[in-house]
Amino acid sequence: MVDSSIKLSEEKVFKDPVHGYVHVRDKLIWDLIGTREFQRLRRVKQLGTTYLTFHGAEHSRFSHSLGVYEVVRQIIDEVFEGQPDWNEGERMLSLCAALLHDLGHGPFSHSFEKVFDLDHEHFTKKIILEDTEVNRVLRTVSPDFPQRVAEVISKTYHDKLVVSLISSQIDADRMDYLQRDAYFTGVSYGHFDMQRIMRVMRPKEDHVVFKSSGMHAVEDYIMSRYQMYWQVYFHPVTRSAEVILTKILQRVKALFRDDYPFKKEPVHFRSLFEENVTLQDYLKLDEPVILYYFHMWEEEEDLILRDLCRRFMDRHLFKYVEFDPAEQYRTLRELEELFRKAGINPEYYLAVDSSSDLPYDFYRPGEEEERLPIHLLMPNGELSELSRESSIVQAISGKRRTDHKLYYPEDILLDYSENRELKQQILSILKKF
Amino acid sequence: MVDSSIKLSEEKVFKDPVHGYVHVRDKLIWDLIGTREFQRLRRVKQLGTTYLTFHGAEHSRFSHSLGVYEVVRQIIDEVFEGQPDWNEGERMLSLCAALLHDLGHGPFSHSFEKVFDLDHEHFTKKIILEDTEVNRVLRTVSPDFPQRVAEVISKTYHDKLVVSLISSQIDADRMDYLQRDAYFTGVSYGHFDMQRIMRVMRPKEDHVVFKSSGMHAVEDYIMSRYQMYWQVYFHPVTRSAEVILTKILQRVKALFRDDYPFKKEPVHFRSLFEENVTLQDYLKLDEPVILYYFHMWEEEEDLILRDLCRRFMDRHLFKYVEFDPAEQYRTLRELEELFRKAGINPEYYLAVDSSSDLPYDFYRPGEEEERLPIHLLMPNGELSELSRESSIVQAISGKRRTDHKLYYPEDILLDYSENRELKQQILSILKKF
Amino acid sequence: MVDSSIKLSEEKVFKDPVHGYVHVRDKLIWDLIGTREFQRLRRVKQLGTTYLTFHGAEHSRFSHSLGVYEVVRQIIDEVFEGQPDWNEGERMLSLCAALLHDLGHGPFSHSFEKVFDLDHEHFTKKIILEDTEVNRVLRTVSPDFPQRVAEVISKTYHDKLVVSLISSQIDADRMDYLQRDAYFTGVSYGHFDMQRIMRVMRPKEDHVVFKSSGMHAVEDYIMSRYQMYWQVYFHPVTRSAEVILTKILQRVKALFRDDYPFKKEPVHFRSLFEENVTLQDYLKLDEPVILYYFHMWEEEEDLILRDLCRRFMDRHLFKYVEFDPAEQYRTLRELEELFRKAGINPEYYLAVDSSSDLPYDFYRPGEEEERLPIHLLMPNGELSELSRESSIVQAISGKRRTDHKLYYPEDILLDYSENRELKQQILSILKKF
Amino acid sequence: MVDSSIKLSEEKVFKDPVHGYVHVRDKLIWDLIGTREFQRLRRVKQLGTTYLTFHGAEHSRFSHSLGVYEVVRQIIDEVFEGQPDWNEGERMLSLCAALLHDLGHGPFSHSFEKVFDLDHEHFTKKIILEDTEVNRVLRTVSPDFPQRVAEVISKTYHDKLVVSLISSQIDADRMDYLQRDAYFTGVSYGHFDMQRIMRVMRPKEDHVVFKSSGMHAVEDYIMSRYQMYWQVYFHPVTRSAEVILTKILQRVKALFRDDYPFKKEPVHFRSLFEENVTLQDYLKLDEPVILYYFHMWEEEEDLILRDLCRRFMDRHLFKYVEFDPAEQYRTLRELEELFRKAGINPEYYLAVDSSSDLPYDFYRPGEEEERLPIHLLMPNGELSELSRESSIVQAISGKRRTDHKLYYPEDILLDYSENRELKQQILSILKKF
Repeated sequence: MVDSSIKLSEEKVFKDPVHGYVHVRDKLIWDLIGTREFQRLRRVKQLGTTYLTFHGAEHSRFSHSLGVYEVVRQIIDEVFEGQPDWNEGERMLSLCAALLHDLGHGPFSHSFEKVFDLDHEHFTKKIILEDTEVNRVLRTVSPDFPQRVAEVISKTYHDKLVVSLISSQIDADRMDYLQRDAYFTGVSYGHFDMQRIMRVMRPKEDHVVFKSSGMHAVEDYIMSRYQMYWQVYFHPVTRSAEVILTKILQRVKALFRDDYPFKKEPVHFRSLFEENVTLQDYLKLDEPVILYYFHMWEEEEDLILRDLCRRFMDRHLFKYVEFDPAEQYRTLRELEELFRKAGINPEYYLAVDSSSDLPYDFYRPGEEEERLPIHLLMPNGELSELSRESSIVQAISGKRRTDHKLYYPEDILLDYSENRELKQQILSILKKF
Repeated sequence: MVDSSIKLSEEKVFKDPVHGYVHVRDKLIWDLIGTREFQRLRRVKQLGTTYLTFHGAEHSRFSHSLGVYEVVRQIIDEVFEGQPDWNEGERMLSLCAALLHDLGHGPFSHSFEKVFDLDHEHFTKKIILEDTEVNRVLRTVSPDFPQRVAEVISKTYHDKLVVSLISSQIDADRMDYLQRDAYFTGVSYGHFDMQRIMRVMRPKEDHVVFKSSGMHAVEDYIMSRYQMYWQVYFHPVTRSAEVILTKILQRVKALFRDDYPFKKEPVHFRSLFEENVTLQDYLKLDEPVILYYFHMWEEEEDLILRDLCRRFMDRHLFKYVEFDPAEQYRTLRELEELFRKAGINPEYYLAVDSSSDLPYDFYRPGEEEERLPIHLLMPNGELSELSRESSIVQAISGKRRTDHKLYYPEDILLDYSENRELKQQILSILKKF
Repeated sequence: MVDSSIKLSEEKVFKDPVHGYVHVRDKLIWDLIGTREFQRLRRVKQLGTTYLTFHGAEHSRFSHSLGVYEVVRQIIDEVFEGQPDWNEGERMLSLCAALLHDLGHGPFSHSFEKVFDLDHEHFTKKIILEDTEVNRVLRTVSPDFPQRVAEVISKTYHDKLVVSLISSQIDADRMDYLQRDAYFTGVSYGHFDMQRIMRVMRPKEDHVVFKSSGMHAVEDYIMSRYQMYWQVYFHPVTRSAEVILTKILQRVKALFRDDYPFKKEPVHFRSLFEENVTLQDYLKLDEPVILYYFHMWEEEEDLILRDLCRRFMDRHLFKYVEFDPAEQYRTLRELEELFRKAGINPEYYLAVDSSSDLPYDFYRPGEEEERLPIHLLMPNGELSELSRESSIVQAISGKRRTDHKLYYPEDILLDYSENRELKQQILSILKKF
Repeated sequence: MVDSSIKLSEEKVFKDPVHGYVHVRDKLIWDLIGTREFQRLRRVKQLGTTYLTFHGAEHSRFSHSLGVYEVVRQIIDEVFEGQPDWNEGERMLSLCAALLHDLGHGPFSHSFEKVFDLDHEHFTKKIILEDTEVNRVLRTVSPDFPQRVAEVISKTYHDKLVVSLISSQIDADRMDYLQRDAYFTGVSYGHFDMQRIMRVMRPKEDHVVFKSSGMHAVEDYIMSRYQMYWQVYFHPVTRSAEVILTKILQRVKALFRDDYPFKKEPVHFRSLFEENVTLQDYLKLDEPVILYYFHMWEEEEDLILRDLCRRFMDRHLFKYVEFDPAEQYRTLRELEELFRKAGINPEYYLAVDSSSDLPYDFYRPGEEEERLPIHLLMPNGELSELSRESSIVQAISGKRRTDHKLYYPEDILLDYSENRELKQQILSILKKF
């Protein structure tokens, strides 16, 4: 067991486009960054398929993880240090949890988790606790240190103040990704005054509160978040790529179940299909591996798999129309029938995708417990929930917004020539959505 | 044959972090971007292994190619249009050449080209001229249009003005990549006033000249270029990753030649080894494919291949010392001998890497013909070569700067314990470099 | 009468921190910028006393005016040109109105207009129509051109499309000042994607509409506007400076009325006091003139004038407390009485200042006619009012926010020592606000 | 005498566009900022007449002074603290000297100092040492503290390390103004990585050295400085305005000497003319006062004064041609003669202005002593002068660049119609320059 406070002989820095520099003074952090499990995050894009919509969004979870670490470091070293409710003994724990919070993310995790019922937080925990380089480094602090890091990330740690630094409605994770994703996509949303927000953060018992003088910066953050969700994260073109990705995975799974004779066997996927993924299997999955298979499957005999893989690699995405699940359910069924008649399998070529977000919420006991509200520290020393002070936040508070779209391969329909009437029928239904 | 001037019903845009937006009005450009050969550039990083030094440098050749197109488009549509020496008939040719100029780049091309004696320009030409989606789109303009595009890119086209837009000491290619690479790495170099430079560009007979009122912006560009070369492109850590990559390729090649029984056969590399790469083979190579092999080879029996692949994937790079080829050649030989004694193959674990750059050069007949000088258009209508007007450019003009480094695996040496004396001998020699 | 379309032999540019460059190709615009009435705007700060809160806000109405011109120029030349509902014949009129729309602004206009019941729009009109250099330049186009420019600025021009470019809930004026004021103050609010907004603008009959694909950029603009109002324009410290300025003007007016023997006679103010300001008088007023008088009056015998001028020049501002006019009216009266007792004239040393803003409003017939709503052009070609499509805008639409503050000189109260009980009484009342 | 280390109960911040925020924790600094002598700097533009060339350059010496303070604060608190050669006891002295270093600057100081043989450093010293609010605040530290601050600013202080923070070839003063002036003018020069430079600064005996790993950032700073000098500070249009300003002052001085009956007496200038300027006289001079006089003098009977003042206020500047003092001295004399013949007084209407700069210099004993070289701290612990390590700096080191221009009123010449032949003669000579 060694002293977790060992400093590097010389501070190391990473040039970072978002924060200027990421500063590392602690040997422990430096060693964690050097582990193979952490380096693996370089091969997982932060925004999955978003690069097919915003070509700049090619950044990895590696750079985001460094960013979250840096934000927490600045909060602790430049704002919290010396504050009465802050326990300096939690510094290293907070930094490690910040750095490692996304460690279990796999490639294109949105689609993978959906199709294979995986949970990246489960794997983050395993990487931290099982036999890995990361675990070995963490254990140099103390035998229970990995466990404590895992608890912070899974939000079960007793000191909720530490938890709230990386998991709350305004935390280092969100503050980094909003700015980082805005920077790499190039959109003008996602900007807010993080320096100002950090300066008004105060540790207060078991959570972080914000001096009311910084309320407008917090409002601005919430608006940025809202815009990033609808402008970037839920962009309909990105969702089209996600739909195709999901359909590829479903198709491979079905073919595997049916003993289809793959030219390129889905070796790396086998344990996913059989639902007995080990940590070692999981760590081998990264984006190059997935894309390699897709490449190979472009040459499979199965026309559906082949077509979907080519679409993904060559970015021939599905088109979309607005869809109202309440009103248009019947029409969808009808459309599926017509697709079948035309020989286009609706299971793979017709898909509804829904996005939904709650920009900010106050506390509703028993409903969404994790949504702890943002509290302002008023000049008189009392706390006040954000939406009570901000008319703008109040206006959007608790208002869930949902969007449904129906995706389909326009090119196949336009090329379809066997039954002209059927084709017209399908196209005219799609036009009416 | 169709009219190359067909416009899209509605202008399309790509959000671009460097230029704000990339604007596409011509159907031909839109169709080229949609081809699979162009989409493939999404899977080739613009800066190869630089992301292992600057974590933000994960951007692809796809976004750079769009950028060069946009710069040329702005020059033509906003500056050249209507200028006496500009032939509007060359507009579409210029745009296509700009968009496609890097089409033949493969993954980590620096190392690949070195080890396998490839030339990306050769493949760019093949993609444009042979049976590809790109060729099919280009041929809609006229049967000889692909040929003309290829000529512009290979600098043999008769109208040197068009050539100089994308290949000269100050061209759209360089102006895009300096800014783009600066943006994604986050360094503060690489900024210059491109808007100003574009505004002072004038087509003058067969090349582009710059009104002398913009001289300082051009100076600034040359200084940016100089800084980017030494701060980013030739960064010693990036070169360490390149060294390892090169050694992996050399090792695989040697093993293949020696009929080594690979667990994972280098199928995609076979034609490279046999020096009969077809266009189809070449197009299948992208970064995910390469990284997939490296992943697999982490489990090979051959200890050298296995070690090098793990180093690359986990970023355990070689250390380096300054090296003077003139003075230290003997010492290097001695070191190789000691490595051999210690059982560390110097062919793979000791490497000299040299970087060299000429920041700007005036015209030297017979020497480096392609280095056409930058000409300023003086108020009196005469042309003057840049270094005659700018004292700063004159000061660095023609001065080649070269840097040599010797790379070696420090960790292996430190862990080596069989012959303590030998170890000390090696380490003390390395210290003296 | 000359051709208004005369171009300069060479385009002129102004380097502008907000728009990169301001481009001038038309001789008419160049000549207008060179007039003495337009150059006078260099001596009027864009944000009045805001520089006393945000030290960067020292920019003038000159740079804002150039900016509005440039925004309108880009809209017309890069978006509207060739659109069916746009009349290219209105181009020059629109550019002139954009450039000249603030021409009648005087120094610290907020306070001056309040105290002297002036209206800068009235003077803008006079400068355009009466005997000035600006008028002479405008008349070179046609005898009625000045009249038409004035009508556009006063919103009475028949072509409401032209009017709406510079006067609507989203116009070139607001788009420039939000960005410019954000830039110079350095706040992180005020950013929105103007390029995107401009690209989706469409002339539609008699106003500008916005393609619905750009809705989020418009939302972002409205949020920026909201934040700038409350964070910058209504900043309580700025309002403190405005209060003092207003009190100075009131005091001088009162002293003048009472034939007070000024050491430095308020010569330049005489016609303001006598309410017979001529255009020539008005044009002589600029910030240096006002500040010169304040300087001089720092030495007057009258203690109130002297104190207020010193406060303004040395930035010894009033402190403030929140004030509720409905509830605290009586307390204010009481306080005034106590001030009088203490020999502190409440007329000059106790002031309520109110700020109020309506972030966005839909159309309410008969109420606030000028608040024309923002219309989105939906994919089906129909128009839809913004707040019907945007849940965020709907949430804040029509919700007026008002803020009242009570200002007083804390330093005088703290220094007051003649009647200790009285002092405590006053301070304790102020504490209770 | 009080403790200079008294902290404010709450840190105060100024929003600053260049540094994000200026942080003030020390009561002493807060009190200095509040003095009337420091507030006066709000009424002196940082770049004098440059706003007539770059309209954004309207920022004051107030904001620059805050900026220099903030840079020194960051260097001390974030880099120097705890370094062996740094004496923490000099912290407050360094901060005060940084904040106050430009305190004695008057309006348009370049021209004023030239015409009236003034020296702003002399007045800075007087303000710090004589009976002022600044002096009163400084004396709260200790009776000799004002003297020590003055010594640091005049570079005579014994601890040269403190001096070099604000006066050396790379100091906080230059680092702030290059960035600030670039920001407000909007030019793309002036950017360098100040964070990087600060991180490699090391106190080393009696000066600041730079770790060699930051050499490229230092190179970039020197190039920025070079570009800012020639692109912004020596811009020929700005110099035209300076010429006119100088001529106004010379004319007023001459008229005063000749007992010219001013309508508006130059009261504030009297002690300048009589060369007995007291501190109180000097402090009354600020830009509004000067501009007020120019305003008034637009109506004087003297045609030269009247014309020059109108030119300055309305920005009707002189045109210029290149001038070679060695070759064209005779031609200038001839031109003066012809001007006189035409009734245009060459003393006021013909002026040569020279600009000259040495971008960087190494140490030359006995020549320009104050030009202390920049030293790099090499990995082996030795120091090496910058130009020995940087080929780019070496190339420009010690190379003085000078530029001469001849200014004249083109409009007067073009309007001149009394002697056509004489007019042609003058114009053709000017064309030949």
